[in-house]
Amino acid sequence: MVKASVPCMNSGDKETSYGTCSLPQEIVLPKARPILEDTIKDMFSNVSSTDCIKVADLGCSSGPNTFMAISIVVDTFHEMCQQAQLKTSPEFQVFLNDLPENDFNNIFRSVASFTDRIKKGKGDKFGLCFVTGVPGSFYGRLFPNRSLHLVHSSYSVNWLSKACISFHVPDGIGNNKGSVYMAESSPPNVFKAHSRQFKEDFSTFLKLRSQEMIPGGRMVLTFNGRSNLYPSKQDDDWKLQLAKSLYDLVVEGIVKEADADSFNIPMYAPYKGELCEIIQKEDSFDLDKLEVVQINWGPRDVLTNEDFEFDKYQRGQKTANSVRAITEPMLASHFGEDILDKLFTGLAKYEAERLGYKLTSIVVSMKKK
Amino acid sequence: MVKASVPCMNSGDKETSYGTCSLPQEIVLPKARPILEDTIKDMFSNVSSTDCIKVADLGCSSGPNTFMAISIVVDTFHEMCQQAQLKTSPEFQVFLNDLPENDFNNIFRSVASFTDRIKKGKGDKFGLCFVTGVPGSFYGRLFPNRSLHLVHSSYSVNWLSKACISFHVPDGIGNNKGSVYMAESSPPNVFKAHSRQFKEDFSTFLKLRSQEMIPGGRMVLTFNGRSNLYPSKQDDDWKLQLAKSLYDLVVEGIVKEADADSFNIPMYAPYKGELCEIIQKEDSFDLDKLEVVQINWGPRDVLTNEDFEFDKYQRGQKTANSVRAITEPMLASHFGEDILDKLFTGLAKYEAERLGYKLTSIVVSMKKK
Repeated sequence: MVKASVPCMNSGDKETSYGTCSLPQEIVLPKARPILEDTIKDMFSNVSSTDCIKVADLGCSSGPNTFMAISIVVDTFHEMCQQAQLKTSPEFQVFLNDLPENDFNNIFRSVASFTDRIKKGKGDKFGLCFVTGVPGSFYGRLFPNRSLHLVHSSYSVNWLSKACISFHVPDGIGNNKGSVYMAESSPPNVFKAHSRQFKEDFSTFLKLRSQEMIPGGRMVLTFNGRSNLYPSKQDDDWKLQLAKSLYDLVVEGIVKEADADSFNIPMYAPYKGELCEIIQKEDSFDLDKLEVVQINWGPRDVLTNEDFEFDKYQRGQKTANSVRAITEPMLASHFGEDILDKLFTGLAKYEAERLGYKLTSIVVSMKKK
Repeated sequence: MVKASVPCMNSGDKETSYGTCSLPQEIVLPKARPILEDTIKDMFSNVSSTDCIKVADLGCSSGPNTFMAISIVVDTFHEMCQQAQLKTSPEFQVFLNDLPENDFNNIFRSVASFTDRIKKGKGDKFGLCFVTGVPGSFYGRLFPNRSLHLVHSSYSVNWLSKACISFHVPDGIGNNKGSVYMAESSPPNVFKAHSRQFKEDFSTFLKLRSQEMIPGGRMVLTFNGRSNLYPSKQDDDWKLQLAKSLYDLVVEGIVKEADADSFNIPMYAPYKGELCEIIQKEDSFDLDKLEVVQINWGPRDVLTNEDFEFDKYQRGQKTANSVRAITEPMLASHFGEDILDKLFTGLAKYEAERLGYKLTSIVVSMKKK
């Protein structure tokens, strides 16, 4: 485990590692896949005219999901080439991006098995796939002007740019005590501060990507979203339970109240209307498609074995492990490592009373003007 | 320290790490720099006509030398833009390549300080520099067709492709006992086997790069070379001393003779005539320039403080550390870690009797036809 001053996931293959826990990226994919496929088919209706297709996956992380979106892109092209009875296909240059703290070494050691699988499944005549790593924040420029055909990102543009600096509460939301996020119980200024920051960040993101993409280029983004215009119980999730467990430690005197009050998870789950408005106002992209989908999120075993009877404490522990995979580095950075076991034992107890979450996801497909 | 089945360097900042030891790359640079600069100036005589300059550094490793060649490229362009009184300069996309076992995480965490230094030194109007990592062997394709302007590599194309498989002696050189490399004392078939393999590998390298580079693109390569047509005492270096120390351990019963006999460092130092012949025969590139330079190689302290009086055992130890930085992962892979301290203590004793080495380097500049 690393302490992190930026959002990154637990690496490795422990019970609490990013790779071994059930992740929204994985669960949303069957629902987002048709949108990604349609976008590709629409963009490259004349597939033979492009020599090399340049695709970026932003916030790729490092785990079993890293190559998922890229696999869909490659599979879709293969299908298109077969349908068009082409003898060869374009080459691919794939840019996997994440913050420099991400475990790129782990990704790079899996590249050969990914490209071998393509060669084996699709034959030698299918275009070569060149995988590169791009370290850096997507709130800055990452690629040369007009160099990308397709950009994909899943659950990453939810992280606010301030996440690149600290996990402290932003200015103006000092009265969000008892919470670690924008919850239903938070005062209105907390919601406004998060919303304003997201608007600014996502506009910046769109502007930068529009510089990097070719005219007519496509972008498919998946967000963790809200089902209501204002934060509501319906969108309550693990962050609420985590706050409960954290403030239990304050009561026990293990965590200082000031430390808990100053901790904030720098994420924002937008409502669909907000996304439309920002995209329209920023004006670099035409919004092609927007779909709101509900997914169940919980431990991998619970989701994949619906009939399996879990002891509720075992289930709670597994959910806590999944949350730990995402949050451990940032919690360790703010509170130190010593409180973590207690914090997640507490979370497991709260989670034992729940059956996982219904998460709202929003998938958007855009076309560069 | 990692065990490696492929050539990679010791990471970290210990006494025996790649980063803290004196390296030929660093020493040869003042001599190779003018060739690299002239190549760039010649290629981009009309600098304003290119939007984005794509540069690859092959075998970039992970240490203080990683950004050295790229810095020269960027500096040279800056100078050209200033001379041409341009208000802006092209963007750069830099591809740092090495085997997937290389420590890319370490490189990626230094990218921001590299790009910040460019911005600070050259101002905001100087083109953005986008750094990416490309894992893979340069004896396979790494980049899309016709996508690179400039390729650089320093002391990496010396590694034979078989190095990507094992450190066992290649077929046909089973009688190179007592040596770990192609030495003066080796029988002729050892020289022939290495020479044949290099010819095959370097031809493959040229063919692949010619596919990846634009017509008129340039390539600057630095080799560890030979000063004579046949291996001679003049080119003896640390590999000979390492073999002595290794076979001492055989006599002591610490290393099995069969293990020592089957170990081979899969490198080849070509003679200038061989390089010319291979480049001409492969026929994708015009050879623009070839320079043979002699460099002194030894511990960093010895080289940078010529007047400093070293205890000869201290000097021997430092040289042994430098060799350990380059060879430890491959030795650990073949012999296990337990013999290493003894092996390098022995090497230090042999090195104490020497004053470092004169190494022959060959710098070539080529133009893609």
